[in-house]
Order: sequence, then structure tokens, then C-alpha cells
Amino acid sequence: MGKNLTSRAEDYSKWYNELVVKADLAENSGVRGCMVIKPYGFAIWEKMQAALDKMFKETGHENAYFPLFIPKSYLSKEASHVEGFAKECAVVTHYRLKNAEDGSGIVVDEDAKLEEELIVRPTSETIIWDTYRKWIQSYRDLPLKLNQWANVVRWEMRTRLFLRTAEFLWQEGHTAHATEQEAIDEAELILKVYADFVEQFMGVPVIKGLKTESERFAGAVETYCIEALMQDGKALQAGTSHFLGQNFAKAFDVKFATKEGKQEHVWATSWGVSTRLMGALIMTHSDDNGLVLPPNLAPIQVVIVPIYKGEEQLEALRSKINPLVAELRSKNISVKFDDRDTHKPGFKFNEYELKGVPVRLALGNRDLENGTIEIARRDTLEKSSVPIDSVVARIEALLPEIQENIYNKAKNHQQEHITKVDSYDEFKKVLEERGGFLAAFWDGTKETEEKIKQETKATIRCIPIDVEQENGKCMVTGKPANHRVLFAKAY
Amino acid sequence: MGKNLTSRAEDYSKWYNELVVKADLAENSGVRGCMVIKPYGFAIWEKMQAALDKMFKETGHENAYFPLFIPKSYLSKEASHVEGFAKECAVVTHYRLKNAEDGSGIVVDEDAKLEEELIVRPTSETIIWDTYRKWIQSYRDLPLKLNQWANVVRWEMRTRLFLRTAEFLWQEGHTAHATEQEAIDEAELILKVYADFVEQFMGVPVIKGLKTESERFAGAVETYCIEALMQDGKALQAGTSHFLGQNFAKAFDVKFATKEGKQEHVWATSWGVSTRLMGALIMTHSDDNGLVLPPNLAPIQVVIVPIYKGEEQLEALRSKINPLVAELRSKNISVKFDDRDTHKPGFKFNEYELKGVPVRLALGNRDLENGTIEIARRDTLEKSSVPIDSVVARIEALLPEIQENIYNKAKNHQQEHITKVDSYDEFKKVLEERGGFLAAFWDGTKETEEKIKQETKATIRCIPIDVEQENGKCMVTGKPANHRVLFAKAY
Repeated sequence: MGKNLTSRAEDYSKWYNELVVKADLAENSGVRGCMVIKPYGFAIWEKMQAALDKMFKETGHENAYFPLFIPKSYLSKEASHVEGFAKECAVVTHYRLKNAEDGSGIVVDEDAKLEEELIVRPTSETIIWDTYRKWIQSYRDLPLKLNQWANVVRWEMRTRLFLRTAEFLWQEGHTAHATEQEAIDEAELILKVYADFVEQFMGVPVIKGLKTESERFAGAVETYCIEALMQDGKALQAGTSHFLGQNFAKAFDVKFATKEGKQEHVWATSWGVSTRLMGALIMTHSDDNGLVLPPNLAPIQVVIVPIYKGEEQLEALRSKINPLVAELRSKNISVKFDDRDTHKPGFKFNEYELKGVPVRLALGNRDLENGTIEIARRDTLEKSSVPIDSVVARIEALLPEIQENIYNKAKNHQQEHITKVDSYDEFKKVLEERGGFLAAFWDGTKETEEKIKQETKATIRCIPIDVEQENGKCMVTGKPANHRVLFAKAY
Repeated sequence: MGKNLTSRAEDYSKWYNELVVKADLAENSGVRGCMVIKPYGFAIWEKMQAALDKMFKETGHENAYFPLFIPKSYLSKEASHVEGFAKECAVVTHYRLKNAEDGSGIVVDEDAKLEEELIVRPTSETIIWDTYRKWIQSYRDLPLKLNQWANVVRWEMRTRLFLRTAEFLWQEGHTAHATEQEAIDEAELILKVYADFVEQFMGVPVIKGLKTESERFAGAVETYCIEALMQDGKALQAGTSHFLGQNFAKAFDVKFATKEGKQEHVWATSWGVSTRLMGALIMTHSDDNGLVLPPNLAPIQVVIVPIYKGEEQLEALRSKINPLVAELRSKNISVKFDDRDTHKPGFKFNEYELKGVPVRLALGNRDLENGTIEIARRDTLEKSSVPIDSVVARIEALLPEIQENIYNKAKNHQQEHITKVDSYDEFKKVLEERGGFLAAFWDGTKETEEKIKQETKATIRCIPIDVEQENGKCMVTGKPANHRVLFAKAY
């Protein structure tokens, strides 16, 4: 298989689009904006789900499932929420089709019109808070910390595989608390869970921060986010955790009796990550040869390719490879022995490079004689020959080494692309020539933020959690500011 | 907590509805026909998913994800398929809401009407076969064996929690094969996987069989099914596996090049089980005190309730209970130590009985002195006192014993409710007085099947796979028949 992959330098966007399809991760479907997640891509998503789900459970959350549909009237109850989602939602208006009377095919049955339209959930705050009203009466019912794994729909006009699709898969956590502080703590705890997951499993370094008012979730008091940086210098929002204050509790009239017997509105958070993370994973590590997967999420961690002529040689190799496969599996390393005789070794090497398998082993007759095996790393493309007796130990050490290496590489890239700028001219120049995060002073107004966005396409990605207090002047208006914020062009 | 549960004898249907809600499994939502699956119910479903998913993977299947929406034209491509699903589907017609010009609120934006309506998937054969056309060119691409875990929507008019809901969760497998026999083997393999899962994990005995033509899946050549029997004598279809012949391959023009270079249509299967299984689980084992869960699926297998007065006594109990909890967990037994001081032991006993926890341990001061602990089984309600040193070993033996016992109890009930009947009068009498499966001769015609259904509400549940050849006469028409089929009233 020739990879025929456009290079990143040639056309980064085309490289990404091709890679997603050629590495068998996903493809567009016959339904506008909706993707098919292919088995190899889904296997990575399943590993992400498993790791995150474990982290959620360890921090005291339980899973549940709420309806796909949201009555139109629910969506309208929280004013800024409906404002944010009404413009791009799939609306169910009928519940039956019928044969057209003129025989022209199947048509919507106008006699089966819903009394109230249903929206396919773009997010589930409204239906969940309508339910929480029934579940929460007393402080004893709090905190309530639920998560659901679900599909959601936002009718995006311009879509890209994983990064922006009309339907996507995600998890959404929805928690209810007795006090403001407890809800804020929860939102911050989840931000940490997200950052830990993205850094430790995906190998993608992130910056933790707060969104500005205009970038906040529709209905939130405060939106926490993690921001990653792609190889092309554009940022990608990898996860958000919202402190919702009492907005939804008030909209859905969710009150609880305090220990002292007073009736108070409940405090809330919501938080989510989605299949968009797949886009971040792909764009952070991959190269012109294809995907580079972190061992912690790779469906196949080690692939073994035999190099042989004829069935007899293959049998000799099998006698070495089969015990090796068994030993690796006994150490919970996922391994594939590709003994297909329909494809040549070179074809297989290309294929597993394209698919980002972290470690490739190759074994031929010469190796058999020498008692060696060839080991190739996907991240550095380095090859070496090791005694076959020590290969398991080598792989056990190598997998975490690769995990660390790709994280460090991405971390260096991120660090090298955070630039302090002090004038608007410098801002525009660096943005154009170098991209990345630009740390600049901003006067805190929506107007300035909007002006910068209109003129440069850069948005404020976040106000970093650990931002340094520093006296400065807004690069656009010259008004005083006491810390920098991070700007970038973003996915 | 008083359980206040209607008894089965009083009103079986009411008992079920109450139990689902009171045991915290699910409840109705604000959206007609759609349920909320509560954390405790969802934890059971997650265990079902994990066990089934493992079985699918062990039999060579991979997971993927296909779009929620199906263009109307896709649904129409397979004639009997559209006939089966058009009458009860949710139709998306618009992609935007807007503020009404008269200020009356938010309304559908008529300027955002879809060119082609989208159906919320009732099942995914059509969108998947439209995709398979692109994936399958040669015999080398076969077999293709995929599964997806997804939500689907069928606009049922009369709904009941888990048993029949507008939206439900399920898995749907869709496989493509080079030969007819291979596809039939797959459909039969999955039937076996389903039967093994339902019997071994859920403890629910089933009968494997074939559906009659009128009960077949819309678009199938043959539908295999597993049928379970509930305590009220009604049957419940617990899973179906369809041999689809070349129907969908022809409708979506999916051909492959054989080894000999000929172009042939692909052979297909599809198969699914859903959250309906939760209904089967609940109705098979539970009693007037509440749920009875099989240990293999119970979110909490063992609960420990301390009996004490004051914090000092509780501390003494803790010193015994904490190591016990740790030891049970080290053996992969899920255990909950309920040391809430807001509720009395009696309340807790009731609660865990209602929630079907298989084993309850109680430890009080007297036990501390005697070195004993009380063990109560949920299935038999038996209690005994055992030395605390031997309790872990006892529980390790007891969990599989309970699993087996509830299966055997259900199996006995099933066996006692399969009645051979030889006349239509006897059929009606047994159906009315005793229910269960009625094994009777039928002439094989749709007309007779329909007449029986109209007159008695009983349907042919299946022609058992292992049915005995036997000469007889149709109980209704007297025409010759060579085997019996199983009738029952069904959920």
C-alpha cells in the first residue's frame, strides 16, 4: 500500500482529512455532516472512554441515561441557553411517514404532527434539570453527581471529521450541590481530571484556564477549559467544565431544604469532552507517514511482521513468534501477529506506520539464526536489533518511554509557541508568521475582544488558571490590564 | 422506608411498574414514551453491556459507530423494511428555531427546512449497507462483522418502562459474508451467544427458535429468536438474530468480486438485544419484596449493615468490617458498607431487599462478642449466622450458588409452563387458566395464525430449533402438520 499522504508542509488541512480516512479512523456518511466512526477509530475512542469512565467513577460519579429528545419549551427556559443552541438544532416535527397518495413514494404524514416539537439534544442540561427537580428535595439528596455517555447533535454548517460534526459522541456530566463553593470545587476537580487524562493518556499537553464571557457556555457563570496546541500553531479546545451557578436550578425550579429547613436553589456544574478529542490526538502527534498513537490508547501496541519465503519458513518463525505473542499478552500488552500471506512485509510496514502502531517487530530467517529480532519505534522511526530473549523486557520499558517521548515532544512544541507580545502590530506579525498562543494584555471588554477576532481571526482561548499578575496596557486600546490572556486561532 | 409494593398476585402489571421506579431503575421523563435510566438501573445495564461486548469480541466482532439519522430515501430502498418502520418513526424536518415575530416565544424556522427529511434511526441496516457498499469490493474484504452500541427510536403509542419505550438503548450487529451458509452460521452463532448470555448472566432460561413469516423482522429471510417466560405466564422476546439473505445487498447494490473474479451480492445478518432485557431480568426473578438480582449482574453483590448504638459501638464494628470489605474487594466482589447514621438498620434491610442485593451481612455487638456475622440471602430470604473468619469463603461459594438457584427456579417455572395441547378448546382453556407456552399443531398458514391471534391474543413465539418431528393436525383447521409450535401471550 502506498500511503500517498499529502505532507503537512504542503497542506496541513488536507493532510489531516486524508489521514483520518486512510488510517481507517472515520469517514463522511451519506448524511450531511454526520460521520461514520470506523472500527479502528472506534477502538481508540473506546480506550478513551474506558480511562475517563474509570476516573469519573473514582471521583464519585455514576452513569445514567437521559432522553435523546428535548421538548422545545424546555430549551426555552434558560434564556442564554436557548440563544446559544436554537440556531443549529435538529427539530423533530412528525412521528410517521406514509405512502404518497399520488404514488410518488414515501412522504411525511401530516396527520402525525407532534403537538410540541422535539429537539435532538445538543446538550442535556434542560432535560436533566427537569428530572433533578423530582429527585432533589433535601440536602440529603446532594451532591448528585451523574454522567452520561451519549450522542448529541448541533447542526453545524461547516463540518470536519471529528473536529466539527453535526452528530458527535461525548460524555456530559451534570452535578447538583448544596453550596456555591462545592459546585466550583467540582468544576475545578473535573478540569483537573480532564487535564490529567489528556496529558497522561493522549500525551497532549494542555493549558488550564477560564473562558472570557463571550466564549462561555450558553448558560454558564464560568467556563473552565483545557486548551491544546496543534502542530500548525492553531489551538484546540479539548474539554470544558462549567460552573452554572443557580441558573438552571432557577429555570427549572430545583430547590432543596437545607439542614436548617430553609428552601434554597441548588448549585450546578456541567462538563464534557467529545470525539473532538480524536482530532486533537491525531493532529498533535502524527507525521507525514501517518498516525502516531500514544501506547496508552493504541488498540494495537505491538505488531509482529514475519519476513519469509514459503510456508516452511513461516512455520519456523511461528515457533518463535507464538510464544512471544503469548508472553506479551500475559503482560497486558495488545499485540497483533500479522501473518497474512496476501501482502508483502513492505506493504505491512507502511500500513502499521499509517495506523500509528507504537512498536513494530520484524523477524526473518537471519534473525532466527542470530537469535535476534528487529524493533522499530513509530514515534522516532528508529530501528534496532535486540536478542529475542530480551525483547519482552525491552517492550515493557519502551512503551512508557514512547508515551513520555511523544508527550515531551508536544510539550516542547507548545512551550516554543507561547509568545509574549506587547503591541498589536507584533501580535499580528507573530500570529501570521508563527501562530501558537500569544500572551497579550487585553482591557477586558467584549468590544476589544470582538475587534481582534474580526481583524485577525484570533480569539481569547483562555485566561490561564495560574496567570501571573503583571501590570500592562491593552495592546489595542492602551487601557490598563493586570494580567495577560492567551490568544490563538483555533479549531 | 416502607416498600409499599403492590403484590404480584394483586396486580402483576402494577407490581412491575412500581418496582422499576421504587428500586431506582428507571422512570418516565417529560418526553412522551422516553425513559430516564437511573444510576442503579444503568449500572446493571453497564454490566450487561460489558459481558455481551466481551462475547462479541471473542467471536470476532468489532465495534463502530454509524449516524443517528437516516435519509428518508434510504429507508425506502428495501420494500418490506420501510413498510415495517415508516409507521412509527421520528422525523426531523428542520434544522433551526427562531424567535417568533409576534413575540410569542420560540418557533420552528420555516426557512430552515431540510431538503430531504431525516429519520431518527429505528435500526441501522439502511445507513450501514449504504456504507458497506464503499467498504466491500472483494472477497478479501469479507467477512465484515461489526457491532454498534446505540440509541434507537420507534414511536410506540403504548409504552412501558424498559419493555416498550420510544427511545431505547441496544446493540445492533451487522455482518456481511461471501456465502449464504456463512451468513446463516453467523446468525446461529449469535443466537447461541445471546442464549448463553441471558442464561448465564441474567439467569433467565430461554427457548431458541425461529419466527414465523408474519413475526419476522422487516427485511429478513429468517429471524431467529430467544423467548423467555415471565412469572405471569407471558412470554418475552429477549433477542433476535436475522439472516437477511441478499435483500439489503441488492437494495444498496453491495457486490464483491469472488476469488474466481465473478461479481456477486453479499449475504447479510443483523442482530440485536436492547434495554428490554432489563424488563426480562426484573420480571423473571423478583418478588413481592422487590428486585432479585443475579450476582453476575448485581452492581452491589454484598451489602454490610452495622447494628449499633452510638459512635463508639460503630467504631468497634468498623474495625471488623473494614478488613472484611478490603478482603471481599480483593476477590473482585463488589461490596457496599452502609454506615449511614441517618437511617436505621431495618430501613436499610428493606432498601437492599427492594434493590435486590444478593447477599446482606449484618454485624452487631452480640456478633462481635461471639465472633459471628449474619448472612441473609436475597433469593431465598434465608438467614444464618456464620463465624466471621469463614464469611469470605462462604460468600465466594454463595454467589454462584445464588446465581444457579435463581436460574433453576426460573427454569422449573418455564418447564412447568410448557403445555402440549391438541384442541383449540383446550388451547383457550390452558391459555386462560395457566398461561405459559402452549405447544400445538398449526397448519403453517398466516390466516390461521392471524385468526388465533385475533381470538385469543396469543401469537406464535417460535418454532423451537430442536422441535421434534411429529404427525398431527392443526388445532384450528385440522390440516396436517408435522411439528408443534409454541404459542403464548407476549410482552
